[in-house]
Amino acid sequence: MTKTANTMWGGRFAAGPDAIMEAINASIGFDRRLAPQDIAGSRAHAAMLAACGIISDTDAEAIRKGLLTVLSEIETGDFPFSTALEDIHMNVESRLRELIGEPAGRLHTARSRNDQVAVDFRLWVRDQCDQADAALQALQLSLLGQAEAGADWVMPGFTHLQTAQPVTWGHHMLAYVEMLARDRGRFADARKRMNLSPLGAAALAGTSFPIDRQMTAEALGFDAPMANSLDAVSDRDFALEFLAAASICAMHLSRLAEELVIWSSAQFRFVKMSDKWSTGSSIMPQKRNPDAAELIRAKIGRIFGANVALMTVMKGLPLTYSKDMQEDKEQTFDAADSLMLALAAMTGMVADMTANRDVLKSAASSGFSTATDLADWLVRELGLPFREAHHVTGSLVALAESKGCDLPDLTLADMQGVHDGIRPDVFDVLGVENSVASRTSYGGTAPAQVRARVAAWKEVLT
Amino acid sequence: MTKTANTMWGGRFAAGPDAIMEAINASIGFDRRLAPQDIAGSRAHAAMLAACGIISDTDAEAIRKGLLTVLSEIETGDFPFSTALEDIHMNVESRLRELIGEPAGRLHTARSRNDQVAVDFRLWVRDQCDQADAALQALQLSLLGQAEAGADWVMPGFTHLQTAQPVTWGHHMLAYVEMLARDRGRFADARKRMNLSPLGAAALAGTSFPIDRQMTAEALGFDAPMANSLDAVSDRDFALEFLAAASICAMHLSRLAEELVIWSSAQFRFVKMSDKWSTGSSIMPQKRNPDAAELIRAKIGRIFGANVALMTVMKGLPLTYSKDMQEDKEQTFDAADSLMLALAAMTGMVADMTANRDVLKSAASSGFSTATDLADWLVRELGLPFREAHHVTGSLVALAESKGCDLPDLTLADMQGVHDGIRPDVFDVLGVENSVASRTSYGGTAPAQVRARVAAWKEVLT
Amino acid sequence: MTKTANTMWGGRFAAGPDAIMEAINASIGFDRRLAPQDIAGSRAHAAMLAACGIISDTDAEAIRKGLLTVLSEIETGDFPFSTALEDIHMNVESRLRELIGEPAGRLHTARSRNDQVAVDFRLWVRDQCDQADAALQALQLSLLGQAEAGADWVMPGFTHLQTAQPVTWGHHMLAYVEMLARDRGRFADARKRMNLSPLGAAALAGTSFPIDRQMTAEALGFDAPMANSLDAVSDRDFALEFLAAASICAMHLSRLAEELVIWSSAQFRFVKMSDKWSTGSSIMPQKRNPDAAELIRAKIGRIFGANVALMTVMKGLPLTYSKDMQEDKEQTFDAADSLMLALAAMTGMVADMTANRDVLKSAASSGFSTATDLADWLVRELGLPFREAHHVTGSLVALAESKGCDLPDLTLADMQGVHDGIRPDVFDVLGVENSVASRTSYGGTAPAQVRARVAAWKEVLT
Amino acid sequence: MTKTANTMWGGRFAAGPDAIMEAINASIGFDRRLAPQDIAGSRAHAAMLAACGIISDTDAEAIRKGLLTVLSEIETGDFPFSTALEDIHMNVESRLRELIGEPAGRLHTARSRNDQVAVDFRLWVRDQCDQADAALQALQLSLLGQAEAGADWVMPGFTHLQTAQPVTWGHHMLAYVEMLARDRGRFADARKRMNLSPLGAAALAGTSFPIDRQMTAEALGFDAPMANSLDAVSDRDFALEFLAAASICAMHLSRLAEELVIWSSAQFRFVKMSDKWSTGSSIMPQKRNPDAAELIRAKIGRIFGANVALMTVMKGLPLTYSKDMQEDKEQTFDAADSLMLALAAMTGMVADMTANRDVLKSAASSGFSTATDLADWLVRELGLPFREAHHVTGSLVALAESKGCDLPDLTLADMQGVHDGIRPDVFDVLGVENSVASRTSYGGTAPAQVRARVAAWKEVLT
Repeated sequence: MTKTANTMWGGRFAAGPDAIMEAINASIGFDRRLAPQDIAGSRAHAAMLAACGIISDTDAEAIRKGLLTVLSEIETGDFPFSTALEDIHMNVESRLRELIGEPAGRLHTARSRNDQVAVDFRLWVRDQCDQADAALQALQLSLLGQAEAGADWVMPGFTHLQTAQPVTWGHHMLAYVEMLARDRGRFADARKRMNLSPLGAAALAGTSFPIDRQMTAEALGFDAPMANSLDAVSDRDFALEFLAAASICAMHLSRLAEELVIWSSAQFRFVKMSDKWSTGSSIMPQKRNPDAAELIRAKIGRIFGANVALMTVMKGLPLTYSKDMQEDKEQTFDAADSLMLALAAMTGMVADMTANRDVLKSAASSGFSTATDLADWLVRELGLPFREAHHVTGSLVALAESKGCDLPDLTLADMQGVHDGIRPDVFDVLGVENSVASRTSYGGTAPAQVRARVAAWKEVLT
Repeated sequence: MTKTANTMWGGRFAAGPDAIMEAINASIGFDRRLAPQDIAGSRAHAAMLAACGIISDTDAEAIRKGLLTVLSEIETGDFPFSTALEDIHMNVESRLRELIGEPAGRLHTARSRNDQVAVDFRLWVRDQCDQADAALQALQLSLLGQAEAGADWVMPGFTHLQTAQPVTWGHHMLAYVEMLARDRGRFADARKRMNLSPLGAAALAGTSFPIDRQMTAEALGFDAPMANSLDAVSDRDFALEFLAAASICAMHLSRLAEELVIWSSAQFRFVKMSDKWSTGSSIMPQKRNPDAAELIRAKIGRIFGANVALMTVMKGLPLTYSKDMQEDKEQTFDAADSLMLALAAMTGMVADMTANRDVLKSAASSGFSTATDLADWLVRELGLPFREAHHVTGSLVALAESKGCDLPDLTLADMQGVHDGIRPDVFDVLGVENSVASRTSYGGTAPAQVRARVAAWKEVLT
Repeated sequence: MTKTANTMWGGRFAAGPDAIMEAINASIGFDRRLAPQDIAGSRAHAAMLAACGIISDTDAEAIRKGLLTVLSEIETGDFPFSTALEDIHMNVESRLRELIGEPAGRLHTARSRNDQVAVDFRLWVRDQCDQADAALQALQLSLLGQAEAGADWVMPGFTHLQTAQPVTWGHHMLAYVEMLARDRGRFADARKRMNLSPLGAAALAGTSFPIDRQMTAEALGFDAPMANSLDAVSDRDFALEFLAAASICAMHLSRLAEELVIWSSAQFRFVKMSDKWSTGSSIMPQKRNPDAAELIRAKIGRIFGANVALMTVMKGLPLTYSKDMQEDKEQTFDAADSLMLALAAMTGMVADMTANRDVLKSAASSGFSTATDLADWLVRELGLPFREAHHVTGSLVALAESKGCDLPDLTLADMQGVHDGIRPDVFDVLGVENSVASRTSYGGTAPAQVRARVAAWKEVLT
Repeated sequence: MTKTANTMWGGRFAAGPDAIMEAINASIGFDRRLAPQDIAGSRAHAAMLAACGIISDTDAEAIRKGLLTVLSEIETGDFPFSTALEDIHMNVESRLRELIGEPAGRLHTARSRNDQVAVDFRLWVRDQCDQADAALQALQLSLLGQAEAGADWVMPGFTHLQTAQPVTWGHHMLAYVEMLARDRGRFADARKRMNLSPLGAAALAGTSFPIDRQMTAEALGFDAPMANSLDAVSDRDFALEFLAAASICAMHLSRLAEELVIWSSAQFRFVKMSDKWSTGSSIMPQKRNPDAAELIRAKIGRIFGANVALMTVMKGLPLTYSKDMQEDKEQTFDAADSLMLALAAMTGMVADMTANRDVLKSAASSGFSTATDLADWLVRELGLPFREAHHVTGSLVALAESKGCDLPDLTLADMQGVHDGIRPDVFDVLGVENSVASRTSYGGTAPAQVRARVAAWKEVLT
């Protein structure tokens, strides 16, 4: 038989149909992770059934106590998970029956696995929103530490990875604090939108038992019960919205990680990553590979891949529950774990990295990076139209380039040769320190602006 | 030369480097769509420059009037767009200079194309959030019309596309109203989060001109200026969040569309699509292909494809602006157009479709669809534990199956043969009408519940 | 300290930086799966080093024997994997040193982890191509069994899920045999393209040792060594091409699975899935949920999600090795496992399912499904232009519809009333059996054609 | 009415249902691009119908001539495309009827739009495979030009964007030649697999006319007719496989583009892009933004986005044709256009760029980049085990670092202080020129190896 089976199943599944069906069908291998949520949901359900007179208080009490025992067995690792029992719901209920006998059979009254798994998974994702928020706050604080220290450290501001204008280190760090604030907003909005209870939708149609859905909703921290039972068991928006928010967040991390990898190169030397977050070479001790940054940069792949996976699964599914939806959990678990890990690693890496102030300033000072300041001076002080000021500036930069110097090194005579209205105070705007100090528009890179934002964020974050 | 070029470029680009660079670089072919936003932004900027004393009132007035002329030329189709001028910003400014002369050169003071395009595109996406909201409301109303008419029409409730329990047509329609409400919530949240003005960030560092960012923000309907100039020109979260919300919405549409395709089959015959939304066959006049439903089902592909595209583009981009980001617009334009089209088509299709009440009821009545009701009766009336009630019900269904009848066709004696506690009033729960009427839990399928939800939604939607 | 750490890392990583770095950096948790490939590669490398005089024969022999011991320890589960040793390469080498001492230190001569992991992973993916091929062949055989049995069972051919023309069950099954043949072709092409050895590329530049790359390539079954050392350590095309082929294959499976789900519905009843591949309900014994089909349908999500993930990771990575590439394995492992499982389950499900011949034929006979046959007869026998024949057919169908009958039920007089050239032999083409029998064009649905294809496929597959 | 309609459709579609249905349903806006393929297919079909005696030679001749007229009208831009006629097939046939009258009505004999569009689109994609091949060859030649010129220009070989070992410019360029060769292989394999004719599958079941599918297949350059008519009209693998190959190719381009962006930075200065492929700043004349490289890097977004889009569309579609499949064309058109444009731009950019040899060599010489060479020398010359050689090398690097010099600057005495077996000829391996010269293993970076590969590629490519 084995021979035939072997041929039949193409090799990997010599064991035949039963093993294959179990392998593709059972979810206990991953949904055991929902045990705390499953037990919380069941405890709330039992209490409500008793309060509504559907089961006796004694039974409810036995169930609720028994479930705590099950939870503690799971937490201590003593729980014998069974694949034959397929999923976490049946594993828990079966053990409960062993522990308390007949009353266990009353727990599933006015409930179905369809609303049960919906409530379990929703509680889990809701908790991840909270964890993401905390982890994002930690990373914001880490960035804020860098921003506060370097509110006036001058560095090049890039477009196209070309030096454009000088900015400050603090300003650059704060850009990410802003991005992460939007991420936190998305998780908060998602959390609020998902915070409705599917419990009581039963299989799909609601129930004829006189249940109190408001009561279980409250017990589980939901704002209200969901208003349509078909939707309650069909909906996986909460997971998809979490994945979408996580993907955009991972995109932000990939941008910062990319910068750190580039800045760590021998050519840039803008930052030095600490040993904790790098790996060396047994042979080249000076080598410091930014492994953590690279791995963080890569996490967008698996997080967004999970988003694609679940979107693809949900495409075109008729209502209500289809078994396809069992594919929701592993993707979401993996994406959440990856995001939390990436956030934690980035938090540590940012806290521990050291900016090379001299290199940053020197890089900022090259490449005629204050040409815009010169043009703005011509507009502001001499009243030139913007486009004409640009033309004059271009001529001055060309002159400096031909002389092999930078703009501050030109003489006043050089300048007046190009435009005779230029006055000595033009030199005030040509140094990079002056340049950044002058960008005092709201949200600009002037250290005063940066310090004001740092202070505002400290207020919010601590 | 053409021969060489031909070889050189592999055939399609005989024209050589200049044509290739223009083809890959110019954006006027698509960003012309941002003309109204670009002009609104420039008008607000000019007014602010004058209010802050940076340009004269006369110049500002000339600029603002001239821009209205440009806008009207564009709206009437008389505007000569030029690819050599690359993008919408340069096209507009160049024409403005022709119209008003020198003052046009002062418009770009304290501004850069980086913050200009950021504000234009953000305004466009914000408007799409509003349009999506309106289109979703229209579809909700369309569904609500069906729900109200069929609040008590019995149909099968499916899991795994297998009949599970009877529900009502109205209840099923309302499930989608709920889903779309979440979609509206996502667009509203995205709109709120994106409603901050990048204008005044200038190239990336802010500006030394004494501008008033609050004033332009207000003029353009933004809640406030963005707080970090680097972030302002680097951020495309607003487009990504719009695309994520649009993708989930398109997923909902794909589910409804799938149901309509299946329901339109000769085997189901649950609904009849109107001629307007179907195509026939010149040869088989009874054939009514659900083309619109299929095309709507497919739109998730291009909408989510756009989301993937822009996420991929943004992955790993260092701050601030990189030319890669020019790829943001076509994807977002196409996704928004596709979504609005799909929503409009679905709205019409739902409004015009006719449910086959007889077929729906007959389908709901087969397949022992009230077995759960029987089990619940055993629990509720006889006090059996849920699991035991399930066992008894299974025996009764098996008995009915062996007799070739459905549950309501069994005799009381048949029933008492399986469990002697069963009383005549059990038959009250075995009809599908009774079944749905009994599901009175909040959000359940009982017509009373459905009507209450319809009333509540009417309040909200009209 | 824990308190601080807790705050610092946002909760999940109380253990601090070291634990986080280990969690994000170590790969032994998943790359242990490459142990057989790693050891095969090392054994080939050692033999080559000795053959080229780089190490002694004695050392090579010790290494090769020691590696077999390590392999057997791993296979029996006795191997103590260490996370501190990070990856499979270091785990194996460290254990080898314990077993054989100093000669172990000579194994890594003229090699680096960069080419080592490239060879390991490539061997693993190559093996998956072979496994996919075998599994696809098994599924083809399963479909062929159905096709042979039902070469002349008439069923509706659908477009838009609307009955279009009658076809045969065998013809429909064979459509999937063709699709899977293309899948096999893709895996075969991918296998051929990837079958080049990176071993000897060393860290990235090649080596100064007089190695023989051809020898290790041959020993490992590769066609040749890769021709550029930088490419050898940077390339992950082989995994991406495998994932792309797997994704298209999973798409095919999703189409068949969708059909089986729809065909299993109470409305279609085209097939009955066996109990092995369905799940029932404790309460509704007639219910047979097509769980396996639904789960197979969903697998495209995680398989294509993995493709997206790895494409995203590889986007924009500079040469040569970056740590981002460590994310390649888990995605590929999971996708391969999912594909093999889905193929095995589909193979069993198809083999075990039963077509309802009566239902199929009856469905095929309704809906004027032979209208095209009538039109073709008018063209062929009466010489009408195609478009005119369509017009006449339309009138006849309309007549039948108005009389409440199907085409074969019209009288000759009815027909001649519409077109007086119609002769009695028109009735030969109006029955569904005659219709399918007439489609004798190559690849058409005529049973003779179907049987010919079955025979041809049997030749190829067995 | 407009008011109502406006409300009803949520604003954008004031025109009501007909306009919406036309907007979502008509394909002539994009499938007009298939006109040449459509006409070629029809001409082949007409010739075959005559050869098989199904239509007269006179009719066939009229049809074939008339179609050439239509084609020439389309090519000169004189063809009046009509949206009411929905698609390219009806537009062409309708015009043909105007031109030649009644015989036009015979063209559609034994054919359907289902096999017609399948053949049109397949021919188009096949042509793109050829165009991609030519464009890839052009880019390979461009890279080969760089490789030949710089076969011995030393530059740093990177891992983790950290200098690892010296390599040569030519070697790095050749790595991409290899990658592109795999891309060409994928397009070639896809072309071969798709090169089967769907024509003659008719609507889905084949036909009862005595057609010769082999004849039309040959006329259109196909290898054979497809063997199953259901598959022929359901299959879009050819487009998906093209998109998958294009996506991997775009990923390769994104890697090279990323390197060019980084290498163009002021910090790296490895290359200077020509003005043709960069844009400047009106104010900072030295600024050279690598716009073309960035836009190429971004193209993976829309190309892979198209792949995701079509995969999502095809997921779960039952056989045979569904209208969803109409979404195949725009995605494939856009991806193909984007790929060809990106390849052409990259070809020009690579041809025109200038490597800064001095900067490359200087970068290669820093960072103890020959430490591996030293370790290899210790193994090769002194017989140290690899791991011990690594230890000694680490000590020497540490010594050099403490003395503030690089390895070649250590004295022999310094070296012998760490390991007394070291001889003067160790210095031969410590210079970067010597290092690269020594990597003579097959595929290694030694200039001799690079030149050999250049010669081999020239043979193949020219």
